[in-house]
Amino acid sequence: MRIDGSPWRSIFPDPDTRGRVRIIDQTRLPWDFVTVPLATLDDAAHAIRAMQVRGAPLIGATAAYGLALAMRADASDAALADAAATLAATRPTAVNLRWALDRMTAALRKLPPAARVEAAWAEAGEIAEADVACNQAIGRHGLALIAEAARAHPGRTVNILTHCNAGWLATVDWGTALAPIYMAHDSGIPLHVWVDETRPRNQGAALTAWELGAHGVAHTVIADNAGGHLMQHGQVDLVIVGADRVSRTGDVANKIGTYLKALAAHDNAVPFWVAVPGSTIDPTIGDGVAEIPIEERDGAEVAFLAGPDAEGAIRRIRVIPPGSAAANPAFDVTPARLVSGLVTERGCCPATAAGIADLFPSSV
Amino acid sequence: MRIDGSPWRSIFPDPDTRGRVRIIDQTRLPWDFVTVPLATLDDAAHAIRAMQVRGAPLIGATAAYGLALAMRADASDAALADAAATLAATRPTAVNLRWALDRMTAALRKLPPAARVEAAWAEAGEIAEADVACNQAIGRHGLALIAEAARAHPGRTVNILTHCNAGWLATVDWGTALAPIYMAHDSGIPLHVWVDETRPRNQGAALTAWELGAHGVAHTVIADNAGGHLMQHGQVDLVIVGADRVSRTGDVANKIGTYLKALAAHDNAVPFWVAVPGSTIDPTIGDGVAEIPIEERDGAEVAFLAGPDAEGAIRRIRVIPPGSAAANPAFDVTPARLVSGLVTERGCCPATAAGIADLFPSSV
Repeated sequence: MRIDGSPWRSIFPDPDTRGRVRIIDQTRLPWDFVTVPLATLDDAAHAIRAMQVRGAPLIGATAAYGLALAMRADASDAALADAAATLAATRPTAVNLRWALDRMTAALRKLPPAARVEAAWAEAGEIAEADVACNQAIGRHGLALIAEAARAHPGRTVNILTHCNAGWLATVDWGTALAPIYMAHDSGIPLHVWVDETRPRNQGAALTAWELGAHGVAHTVIADNAGGHLMQHGQVDLVIVGADRVSRTGDVANKIGTYLKALAAHDNAVPFWVAVPGSTIDPTIGDGVAEIPIEERDGAEVAFLAGPDAEGAIRRIRVIPPGSAAANPAFDVTPARLVSGLVTERGCCPATAAGIADLFPSSV
Repeated sequence: MRIDGSPWRSIFPDPDTRGRVRIIDQTRLPWDFVTVPLATLDDAAHAIRAMQVRGAPLIGATAAYGLALAMRADASDAALADAAATLAATRPTAVNLRWALDRMTAALRKLPPAARVEAAWAEAGEIAEADVACNQAIGRHGLALIAEAARAHPGRTVNILTHCNAGWLATVDWGTALAPIYMAHDSGIPLHVWVDETRPRNQGAALTAWELGAHGVAHTVIADNAGGHLMQHGQVDLVIVGADRVSRTGDVANKIGTYLKALAAHDNAVPFWVAVPGSTIDPTIGDGVAEIPIEERDGAEVAFLAGPDAEGAIRRIRVIPPGSAAANPAFDVTPARLVSGLVTERGCCPATAAGIADLFPSSV
């Protein structure tokens, strides 16, 4: 998407140096916009491990380019296997990471080493383009929902609430939940986005607000507590969020707090849509609340926050008493009964086993 | 309640200097525990204005003592009227503030100036004691609910979730929502409290966690996003919150985010109780969601946070991008249908017009 009018992606071939890629260092957003070159396997592994890149699709694309960079140094079978193992270990639970490495390895192994450098670069590029195309398709299908809300209230701004960051920074471009919003904005639909802060890691305030602002989309940051009140008072026309995993029955695992917004949307008859690529649907899960394991992260993420002081120096401060413990479940599961539907690259469907099976027969 | 084993109140006669009171400077909690003497009218007015004291009952008691301090300097009719006006202007919307000043003024005006110093001191003391007695009664009635939860799960810790701070720091002693928790803890019921951080002002993390820790009550701070997930997984036995205003039909205005927790409690069959003195019930309000005005506070409370860095220096940091706006509705209204009942000084009642009228006939 655009930053101050210029088009950007979260990972892209370095315009200055052939065979190298650049990323946006997301650990420094929203305070500093800095791009970082990835020239070697180690650069790519570090970028994933240090969370300079995050979001499953972007991690997958970065790993693919990481293998391509490794081939430039050594295109042997042993180097290919070593590089894949190194990248796979950076964030062991990311599904897209493993998928991208398997796809790259399968394509390269059958080629002679001399052909691998160019082939790896091309294959990584295809993985990145496929992500962009998938998100564009999600965006087009979601755009129809926003256009419908706009038609229901002619002349009025459409108010959309989102939680966490499912934007272009989490993918190669467009994002999932934010793709329909960017398309609606670009097509001239007047809209405004309520951005949940998304404690404890503040991905909403730090990344979603920054993305939307850079692209020129009107938005307002709110505490995670505020969304229910806004819905009660007619200030939210629809909710769009992303997801980390969707059960075959339509239960949605997403950033902690999503469930509370889904309850409020349901209580106030506000449509609640979940934008996901089909790869997010897990056919092995039936009851999402009972079966999807929820990562318990370090309580320090609740106890401490970092940001710039008045002089611009980044400070890390404590926000809970030294003697108090903190718990930090990172995700929750929204039961399918609260979800208006899924927005996927193949179209929209009800969040039900039948709805999902219609679009993704292999997920049943 | 106790701090490290010693009994404290939030306002109390200065043990060293007759005719002076001391308060805990709540602007420095939870990082520093400092008491401040109030010797003059101006001291008391400053303490309320600067939020060294907060919470409607404590503001009322502080204003009452402020009038008593004013009488020591000048007990004339003119001084009495001036002092009441000065104190009334400190926080114009606080109902208890006005109520305490009216009660003090009515009692003092009929006395000769020479008798006013002692009478004012005694009257302020009675206002403070009446608050303590009211909260103790709320605590006793709420204790029965916690004891019932303990009997339902013998040998297991009772898990209670609370939002914001309705503890002894908001009153003279005991608090409202926390009074039952302190009584249950003191009576030996094993319990643990989930403390919502309560963004944007973090009264849960800063004040409730500190209070509970100082008194020795087991507790864990969580992001405001986490409570729904905990309820889905059986980790919350009951919710107890306070309220700023209750409609005659049982709708509850309380800190922003309360409504989201009430929705989650309802969705998971977790009892959701609201602990309030009868004075909180507003007989003029029928539909709380439509009729209770919600204060929109400064967006800077969302955009900035303060706390100590690693060296203990208090730093104020920015947590949203400089170009992003922030909205800050301070309260929301939980519809009575989501409230299991009210815990008042006269007992528990359903959150319905009939239930409230039974206990408080004058509120209808």
